[in-house]
Amino acid sequence: MYVLCSDLESVLLPELWVEIAKQTKIEELKLTTRDIADMNLLMQKRISALKENGVSFKDLQEVVSRSEPLEGAVDFLRWARKKMPVIILSDAFWEFVSPIAHKMDYPTVFCNSLEIDEEGFISGYKLREDGKRRTVEALQQTGMKVIAMGDSYNDVRMIQKAEKGIFFNASEKIKTEFPSVQATSDYEELKDIILETVR
Amino acid sequence: MYVLCSDLESVLLPELWVEIAKQTKIEELKLTTRDIADMNLLMQKRISALKENGVSFKDLQEVVSRSEPLEGAVDFLRWARKKMPVIILSDAFWEFVSPIAHKMDYPTVFCNSLEIDEEGFISGYKLREDGKRRTVEALQQTGMKVIAMGDSYNDVRMIQKAEKGIFFNASEKIKTEFPSVQATSDYEELKDIILETVR
Repeated sequence: MYVLCSDLESVLLPELWVEIAKQTKIEELKLTTRDIADMNLLMQKRISALKENGVSFKDLQEVVSRSEPLEGAVDFLRWARKKMPVIILSDAFWEFVSPIAHKMDYPTVFCNSLEIDEEGFISGYKLREDGKRRTVEALQQTGMKVIAMGDSYNDVRMIQKAEKGIFFNASEKIKTEFPSVQATSDYEELKDIILETVR
Repeated sequence: MYVLCSDLESVLLPELWVEIAKQTKIEELKLTTRDIADMNLLMQKRISALKENGVSFKDLQEVVSRSEPLEGAVDFLRWARKKMPVIILSDAFWEFVSPIAHKMDYPTVFCNSLEIDEEGFISGYKLREDGKRRTVEALQQTGMKVIAMGDSYNDVRMIQKAEKGIFFNASEKIKTEFPSVQATSDYEELKDIILETVR
C-alpha cells in the first residue's frame, strides 16, 4: 500500500513566513529553508526579529489565518486523498497550520510546535529533528511504500528515502543539485507521476 | 505532539462484514474479529462463503457503499482532526473503505487490500500483519505520542503500546479481560478523555 508524504509550504500552501514577512514588513522573515537549510539557525533569526519588532504570537496567528492554499492545491489534495492515505510532513508549526487546516479539509499533518512566553511572544519551539525522513522510514518499516514530495532542502532526505521522490515547485538550484529526482510544478503532471508510480 | 490512531469499524463505521451479511443474507459473514481473532482464518471463511453464494466483488462494493458512519462519528472525527493529526488504522480493506471515505471527509486510513480474480470474485488479500501495533510503534520512534482507540481484540496490542489506550464500543467480554484500559461508548466522554490526555 502506498502512502503519500507531502511537504506543505510552497507545495500546498504559500511559505507562511514569507506571508508573515509581507504583512509585518520585517525583511529578515523572508528567509526560508530554501535560503538557510539549518532550521535552528533560521528559527533563532525569526524569534529575534519578531521580538525586536514587537510582533506577538496572536498577531502572527491572525496574519497566517488569512493565507490561502496555492491555486489547485485543494483539488490536488482531494484527488490524492481519494487514491491513498496522505500525510503532510512539514517543518511549519502546528499553531500556524491549525487556523488554516479547514481550508484544506483537515488533512493529517505532522509538524513542529511552538512555545509561547507569558508576554505572548514566541519563546521557543519543538522541532521533530529530521522528522520527515524518520517518518518515511518508520512508515516503510510497517510495510508501506512511500511517495514523498517537497520543494526544498529539508525535503531532500525524505525524497531520497522514499520509493518515489518528487520535487514540486522546487528551485532550479536544488533541481540541478539533485538531478535524479523527478520534478514538476504542475498538479496535473504530479497526478500522472503518482498514478504511474502506484500502477 | 500527539497523534490519534483510531480503529474504524464499530468505532466510526458499522462492521462492514456485518452489513454485507445482512444484505447478502449469508450467515457466516456475520463473524468479525470480535468472534475470531485470527484474521487469516476469518478471511478464508469469508472468501469461501462469498464464492459459494456467487457474490462478486462488485456486488460487495455496492453493498458497502450504502453504509453510513455511526451516529456522532463524523462530528467526532471533525473535532479530533482540528485538535491533532488522526490516522485510522483498520483491518478493513481499502477497496471497501474508499467508496465511503467521502462520508468521513477523506480521513487518512491505513488498512489492508484485496485481490480480485478475473471472474470478479475476491481471490485473496494482503494483510498488514500486526499493522496497528507496528504503526503505533513506528510513530513513537519518530517522537510522536500516540492515543490509540478501538473496540476489539485486533486493537489490544496497539492500545497497550500507546501512551494512552481507549476502548470505544468494546464488548463487556474484552473490557473484563483488559480492565486497565479506559473504556467508553460515548463520543463526548471520548473527547474528554482525549483532552485530558493531551493537556
